[in-house]
Amino acid sequence: MSDGAEGREGAKRVEAFSDGVIAIIVTIMVLEMHAPEEAGLEHLWALWPVFTAYALSYAYVAIYWVNHHRMFHYASRVTNGLLWSNIALLFALSLVPFATAYLGMHHFSRDATLLYMGTMMLPAFAYTWLQGVIRRTGAQDEAAQDYHRRTVRKGFAATLVYAAGIPLTFVSPWLGLGCALIVAVFWFLPKSPLDALFGD
Amino acid sequence: MSDGAEGREGAKRVEAFSDGVIAIIVTIMVLEMHAPEEAGLEHLWALWPVFTAYALSYAYVAIYWVNHHRMFHYASRVTNGLLWSNIALLFALSLVPFATAYLGMHHFSRDATLLYMGTMMLPAFAYTWLQGVIRRTGAQDEAAQDYHRRTVRKGFAATLVYAAGIPLTFVSPWLGLGCALIVAVFWFLPKSPLDALFGD
Amino acid sequence: MSDGAEGREGAKRVEAFSDGVIAIIVTIMVLEMHAPEEAGLEHLWALWPVFTAYALSYAYVAIYWVNHHRMFHYASRVTNGLLWSNIALLFALSLVPFATAYLGMHHFSRDATLLYMGTMMLPAFAYTWLQGVIRRTGAQDEAAQDYHRRTVRKGFAATLVYAAGIPLTFVSPWLGLGCALIVAVFWFLPKSPLDALFGD
Amino acid sequence: MSDGAEGREGAKRVEAFSDGVIAIIVTIMVLEMHAPEEAGLEHLWALWPVFTAYALSYAYVAIYWVNHHRMFHYASRVTNGLLWSNIALLFALSLVPFATAYLGMHHFSRDATLLYMGTMMLPAFAYTWLQGVIRRTGAQDEAAQDYHRRTVRKGFAATLVYAAGIPLTFVSPWLGLGCALIVAVFWFLPKSPLDALFGD
Repeated sequence: MSDGAEGREGAKRVEAFSDGVIAIIVTIMVLEMHAPEEAGLEHLWALWPVFTAYALSYAYVAIYWVNHHRMFHYASRVTNGLLWSNIALLFALSLVPFATAYLGMHHFSRDATLLYMGTMMLPAFAYTWLQGVIRRTGAQDEAAQDYHRRTVRKGFAATLVYAAGIPLTFVSPWLGLGCALIVAVFWFLPKSPLDALFGD
Repeated sequence: MSDGAEGREGAKRVEAFSDGVIAIIVTIMVLEMHAPEEAGLEHLWALWPVFTAYALSYAYVAIYWVNHHRMFHYASRVTNGLLWSNIALLFALSLVPFATAYLGMHHFSRDATLLYMGTMMLPAFAYTWLQGVIRRTGAQDEAAQDYHRRTVRKGFAATLVYAAGIPLTFVSPWLGLGCALIVAVFWFLPKSPLDALFGD
Repeated sequence: MSDGAEGREGAKRVEAFSDGVIAIIVTIMVLEMHAPEEAGLEHLWALWPVFTAYALSYAYVAIYWVNHHRMFHYASRVTNGLLWSNIALLFALSLVPFATAYLGMHHFSRDATLLYMGTMMLPAFAYTWLQGVIRRTGAQDEAAQDYHRRTVRKGFAATLVYAAGIPLTFVSPWLGLGCALIVAVFWFLPKSPLDALFGD
Repeated sequence: MSDGAEGREGAKRVEAFSDGVIAIIVTIMVLEMHAPEEAGLEHLWALWPVFTAYALSYAYVAIYWVNHHRMFHYASRVTNGLLWSNIALLFALSLVPFATAYLGMHHFSRDATLLYMGTMMLPAFAYTWLQGVIRRTGAQDEAAQDYHRRTVRKGFAATLVYAAGIPLTFVSPWLGLGCALIVAVFWFLPKSPLDALFGD
């Protein structure tokens, strides 16, 4: 057995490790919602930006998990590229709780929204790298090729919408976050509207 | 392979991810029990509301895990509905540590009990959604149908008792928490008293 | 399939969940070792009670994990007893970080040592319950019976030594912790000295 | 079945538990990056030492995970030596978040760098112990022997470079961290430059 070819069995341990890290990332974010020591509904209500930021980030990380889950299905060998692009993705996702805490703490200010949107682009880069690795070294059957063709196209469209959100944040943070939300809905759907457009 | 049909193998990765998130939720709650810096038994004793709230929530989340464990046995395909109802359930459960901390911190006050009981209803809604998905897309043999018939009936009765707890909390928080405890015991038992009533 | 008989497959999910919870318990304890903000070796040195308490508890929880690992090998059915005795064990272990923080914070004072030793007895009770369940409902071959006979005997001897530590703590906390250490070494060894005594 | 011979199946549970602990270690480190409450880029910028320390430690722990992943492939029996050397490795790695927090908090001061580099040597010792156990009790085929010969050689060279970093830290912390970085790159590569030197 060469180092770079452990097969499907090894790919599953990488999946399990990724699941562990993502499960922790998604859960520790909730620790930023500190229960207020003072009684009264107004102190609970004051937490709405922290809660909204948490819910948005939870949805984003969950979407990454779902797509990671689908894509790893086609990984058939553990190469160095697979290990390190996956580790880079997990590193990028591990920065999400920080950006989320900052966004909630600073009540969706322009600077906080820019930091949040910038941080949210890092996992997208790592994901693209990972997808390239799996496309080259993973399953090559028709289903795999079809999957990659559709998601690469989807990723490209998502990046365009997302990138448009950056200048729009200077107009209003809510426009930027709106773009982020469109991208989330886009990935949430199993098939993108583009598929119909391209006849898939 | 279509996106929505990974079979039993894929369902197991969803189970494993859920187990990871639930394991973290159940464990980070204990972090709210801060060890008192002052010596003396009275400072330890003062922690009883935090400890009681922790024990109650631990039992609740454990019951969700046990029932999730049993129900996922009948999931045989990874559909989008399965993924997102499951992610919604985990999101709802991730709010439990917050409500628990608030309940312990505010010594089972009426407001804290209402927040706690309200938060505890969210995973119930998500669980009902998830069960509907598994009922439609999972195993269809007699054991599965029997399982779903019994647990849907049980869930309905549990919701009635639980809902009765909300107005009772206005009389006394302990009455509300008593209803929550009855529901916990109800789910703790593998077979509900209703089964005898309905002749199952 | 009846609720209480999922077989070896189900037992493995219970094992995996337990591993997740134990992994988190063992790791979050290290969060109690707060890095001192002041420079200087004396501030690091002042952490020795916290570090010692962490190392001791890490060893204890690791020993539970190793023995849980060995014993679960003989579990062959997921009964309600198995689920709930296992959940009780995980609950008892989840209290260890609290008692450890208290022990380190109060520099092995008599009260803190008593709390620590009392907390450490809770998982022992739950473990005994779990072992009884596995003995009754798990594998019944000769290897399993031999395993249970040897470990029940070991558990009994360990409990005697441990119980002796409680009054000795009133003489000096170090005597109590010494008893705890003897028990740890006792379980650390795969075969106890008692085996030779009884001719196994 | 004797206690010390559970075979490949048991080795996989040890792997899964290790993955869980490593996933938590790698993720909780990010909690040290507290989001600043004050607005303004200068407060974000002030976090660079904490961020750099986090990124370096993340890379180190990830490298341990990757190599652990590769080496455990050759473990074929769960012996006591395997369990305890592995638990020692996880204990040593669990100290990394503390040393990382200290390094970031004290802005790469000489003392903090020495503590960090000293802490980083502990997992190396435990890893060497674990590798010795797997070499003796694991797979003995040619691929396994080749793997061990190459990595032991690599480990020896890495230790030399790393040890040179300790005195160099007294000259400048950056020289010490530079040595740590060389070792990281060394392990990052699947095949070391030494292989060419020795004709492998």
